[in-house]
Amino acid sequence: MDRSPLAPAAFPSLPAIAGVTLRTARAGYKAWERADLTYIELDAGTAVAGVTTQSKCPSPEVEWCRDAIPLGAARALVVNAGNANAFTGSRGRAAVEAIAAKVANHLACLPSDIFISSTGVIGVPLPVEKAEAGLDAAFAAAPCDWEQAAITIGTTDTYPKGAKASALIGETRVDLVGIIKGSGMIAPDMATMLGYIFTDAAVDPGLLQQMLAAANKRSFSCITVDSDTSTSDTVLAFATGKANNARLRLMDDPGADAFAAALADLCRQLAHLVVRDGEGATKFIEIRVEGATSDDSAHRIGLSIANSPLVKTAIAGEDANWGRVVAAIGKAGEPADRDRLSIRFGATQVATHGLAVEGYDEAPVAAHLKGQEIEIGVDLGLGEGRATIWTCDLTHGYISINADYRS
Amino acid sequence: MDRSPLAPAAFPSLPAIAGVTLRTARAGYKAWERADLTYIELDAGTAVAGVTTQSKCPSPEVEWCRDAIPLGAARALVVNAGNANAFTGSRGRAAVEAIAAKVANHLACLPSDIFISSTGVIGVPLPVEKAEAGLDAAFAAAPCDWEQAAITIGTTDTYPKGAKASALIGETRVDLVGIIKGSGMIAPDMATMLGYIFTDAAVDPGLLQQMLAAANKRSFSCITVDSDTSTSDTVLAFATGKANNARLRLMDDPGADAFAAALADLCRQLAHLVVRDGEGATKFIEIRVEGATSDDSAHRIGLSIANSPLVKTAIAGEDANWGRVVAAIGKAGEPADRDRLSIRFGATQVATHGLAVEGYDEAPVAAHLKGQEIEIGVDLGLGEGRATIWTCDLTHGYISINADYRS
Repeated sequence: MDRSPLAPAAFPSLPAIAGVTLRTARAGYKAWERADLTYIELDAGTAVAGVTTQSKCPSPEVEWCRDAIPLGAARALVVNAGNANAFTGSRGRAAVEAIAAKVANHLACLPSDIFISSTGVIGVPLPVEKAEAGLDAAFAAAPCDWEQAAITIGTTDTYPKGAKASALIGETRVDLVGIIKGSGMIAPDMATMLGYIFTDAAVDPGLLQQMLAAANKRSFSCITVDSDTSTSDTVLAFATGKANNARLRLMDDPGADAFAAALADLCRQLAHLVVRDGEGATKFIEIRVEGATSDDSAHRIGLSIANSPLVKTAIAGEDANWGRVVAAIGKAGEPADRDRLSIRFGATQVATHGLAVEGYDEAPVAAHLKGQEIEIGVDLGLGEGRATIWTCDLTHGYISINADYRS
Repeated sequence: MDRSPLAPAAFPSLPAIAGVTLRTARAGYKAWERADLTYIELDAGTAVAGVTTQSKCPSPEVEWCRDAIPLGAARALVVNAGNANAFTGSRGRAAVEAIAAKVANHLACLPSDIFISSTGVIGVPLPVEKAEAGLDAAFAAAPCDWEQAAITIGTTDTYPKGAKASALIGETRVDLVGIIKGSGMIAPDMATMLGYIFTDAAVDPGLLQQMLAAANKRSFSCITVDSDTSTSDTVLAFATGKANNARLRLMDDPGADAFAAALADLCRQLAHLVVRDGEGATKFIEIRVEGATSDDSAHRIGLSIANSPLVKTAIAGEDANWGRVVAAIGKAGEPADRDRLSIRFGATQVATHGLAVEGYDEAPVAAHLKGQEIEIGVDLGLGEGRATIWTCDLTHGYISINADYRS
């Protein structure tokens, strides 16, 4: 698959995070030569937080993580690429337990300290013997860099995705690094979104969870490629504490705000990287909704616009079709008043107060739509609620990837 | 636009309905030579019922109909094709009032007896002078047949759509005829769904409304092409009473059940005709959900499957990708238990109780998916709730129609 036209020029330079050791190996989950098992060791004392798919039919890995996250401690992360192990019943669950037991034995820790994700084809139980042989190979492998790990967790991704952020907690600099995979919400090989964040900051797991949940609400929850939610979507954050900052325990602690802002920034960067790899995407679309009756209402209206096939195809066609935006707002089921509604493309108002702006200058709109970065602004004129949603256009490429493929 | 491959072979033979007179004229809403104004006169004493879009940003025509339906009486229907008159503020409203006033004057009735729909481009107020000239031409025109009326209400439709049903009320035969237009929920020219049903039965408007609402719930509310809801969707039912049956007033009246069944059958036929003209559609998909905790829950799960781009592209690709069906069920937000879920394509179970059926016979599944009529069965194994939803596949044709077009 060709690299997405919206991809960054290169994988960024990312710092090492003290207490985090990356290794990869080839478990051979598919008949390919690439590494497909990522094993990330975390020093003792690492705190963990996580958010997972809202799906009512999650994978056993998601169920495992949901159970382990509240315990707050992590010693390792295992990511299997090529087999999602979803919809595999008790055999899938047994595979997850076997992996956790093997790694816990290797590290002399609790199985609940081991976090596991799998992504790839579904309905086929993860082959335990391949996972175990892959882990043995990974245990013996030389450490690798972030780019190698980002490549190895990927499936249908057209480029590896990583980002960084940093913050000062008192006088102590802390670093955050994230890697992520995903290109549709799900895709031929279940291109689940799996994101992992590592920081050397010392943060209590309860506070880390609170900060991750807040960051998630303004990042991963604000992106959509095709409105489809995977059974395996997972974002985990690990804090090793090796920076030896004054430990963050409460949002009121000095530096907590700065760390939360850095975490939110990193999550937004990672979320954008997923949208930029949206299947068939040729344009990155930012939808800014304001004037809604609440932030939640603005969020739902933004998602309704972002998920509208007609809006997405209009942008693909570089067409300033604000009528389709109106229709998408109307169907969101949220408070809206046609006669107070204003819509802009880029900086140009095309409709205000329920009417097309007569004789608006079409040249800047056309120029804006020809670009790769599209902004749609909606003002509902009702209140103070606002939200920003990111998505991509819907093109022949999406159909080719998803219809011209056989499972 | 080529006729949809899913279209019926020909427009059906439909009976005249006593008390209903059809005429068409060219108002010239667009630069085309075709008739674009449909004027349908209804004899005095005609009862009316209607259902309209759930959109919070409806067209002034929809607002007009919403106000007039509860009054229960109708003398005429005017349908404008080529201009939706949506998002046009007070000028759009004034155009609707002018049309109602002119027809009411012609028929010496109340303006609220006149029902109006418009479909086509949005954001441009309906030109009143063209509407008035078109009406004058229609008043003077010779009556036409159902097919001509069905053609005239159409915009992006690739074929005219009509159907019939009949029932016995006591010893009296009553006939029902419906015409409908629509191909996406909305489309380049706002291919709104507009449906009109005419019967010679004598039915009180309150009962007709009750029956139409019930029929709508199992027909028009169960179809989706692209999840997009138009600002103008409208279905109206007119009952002239000319059959002189014992007037139906209550659901318990003799023959009311039979009439309601015929109405429901007609609505389902009309709904299917819209799906069969889905933009770019090559396959008609029936999704049967059972075992849900309630009928409403089954309905939402069915729509989640039907609106999933990944399910729709899988069917386009003739791929029995039940994993995408699982994902669509999981994201519906309704009660579902992976380990109780069963899925079939056609008559073949491909997954039961949370696991792929090992070694299921792929030949009948492949043969089924190669056809034009696809059935997906889902049993949630939780309760008695059931629903049937109809949709079409998502193809390159949809993208071509919606992205390669400029407004």
